[in-house]
Amino acid sequence: MVNYPVKKSPNFTVVHKNRGIAFEKDINITNEYYLNNDIAVIHKKPVPIQVVSVNYPSRDTASIDKAFYTIPSTTDYNGIYKGNYIDFEAKETKNKTSFSFVNIHEHQIKHLIKVEEHGGISFILVKFTLLDEIFLLETKFLKNFFLRKSNGGRKSITIEEFRTYGHLIATKYSPRVDYLKVLDEII
Amino acid sequence: MVNYPVKKSPNFTVVHKNRGIAFEKDINITNEYYLNNDIAVIHKKPVPIQVVSVNYPSRDTASIDKAFYTIPSTTDYNGIYKGNYIDFEAKETKNKTSFSFVNIHEHQIKHLIKVEEHGGISFILVKFTLLDEIFLLETKFLKNFFLRKSNGGRKSITIEEFRTYGHLIATKYSPRVDYLKVLDEII
Repeated sequence: MVNYPVKKSPNFTVVHKNRGIAFEKDINITNEYYLNNDIAVIHKKPVPIQVVSVNYPSRDTASIDKAFYTIPSTTDYNGIYKGNYIDFEAKETKNKTSFSFVNIHEHQIKHLIKVEEHGGISFILVKFTLLDEIFLLETKFLKNFFLRKSNGGRKSITIEEFRTYGHLIATKYSPRVDYLKVLDEII
Repeated sequence: MVNYPVKKSPNFTVVHKNRGIAFEKDINITNEYYLNNDIAVIHKKPVPIQVVSVNYPSRDTASIDKAFYTIPSTTDYNGIYKGNYIDFEAKETKNKTSFSFVNIHEHQIKHLIKVEEHGGISFILVKFTLLDEIFLLETKFLKNFFLRKSNGGRKSITIEEFRTYGHLIATKYSPRVDYLKVLDEII
């Protein structure tokens, strides 16, 4: 099991221990289903890592012996569905009442907004693990809640707001998190 | 300077020492130009690395002390341009007469073909460094040359074929490798 620490500044790193691994796995399995059934081509991007030192124990092998996690410049997932560019970030929270903006980088929100401006379909997938509810929230709504925060308002999106503006995604056996089904209503 | 070794199988790793770093840098600068001028949102994906061991020297820092480069599951670049999903791989070669299929993973070619089938725009960018010629070759042509190889034909694409079927990209000061200009003729 690998942990995913995120470097916040050159001198400060926060370790998000195991956060989001289970949900991420479900999304990856869903994307594999979409790919194998020729529904969509959506992949998770590799975790960005800055390599500091590489060691060559033999002619044919290379081993990284020093590296650091770095802040992702975009979102975790992107790809194509029915000719549309798809871009999203997936997060899970143990909070039962709201999803805090602490969980998502500001530049990731700006990236999602930029994608929308260029004609793509962008959103966040948020899983409230203790409520077992997964929502797809389109960027146009995320943007409004982000502006509210930027203007001194609340620093989170409430569960009621997700229930009002988001799309609830039912989990099932296969595909596990069928978020593209929801997109069909949006496109 | 970091080298990019590519793991071919669990027991065999080939190190492509510094290959393609200069061309990659030019494309990244071009993409930054597109982003800053609101022309397109195209990013390079992080290099895929499998982390084996993470060390926590202090509460707030995480350091990877063992990891390996892994084979990328898709291509290096993707994003959105004028509402279109864009996906490509960039390579450079010192060969003056042809571009060998050794330089590109078979599953990357299959990924490019899949993207095209789903309505996206996919291609390869190939720089013949000693000729100082850069070509954009659409997947529909790449696919034909790949089929020729699969059917026992030549294992490379000749420079003449690039000149006939590809689009020559002029390099200039800014943007350095203006590949989107060529796409305007294709879209």
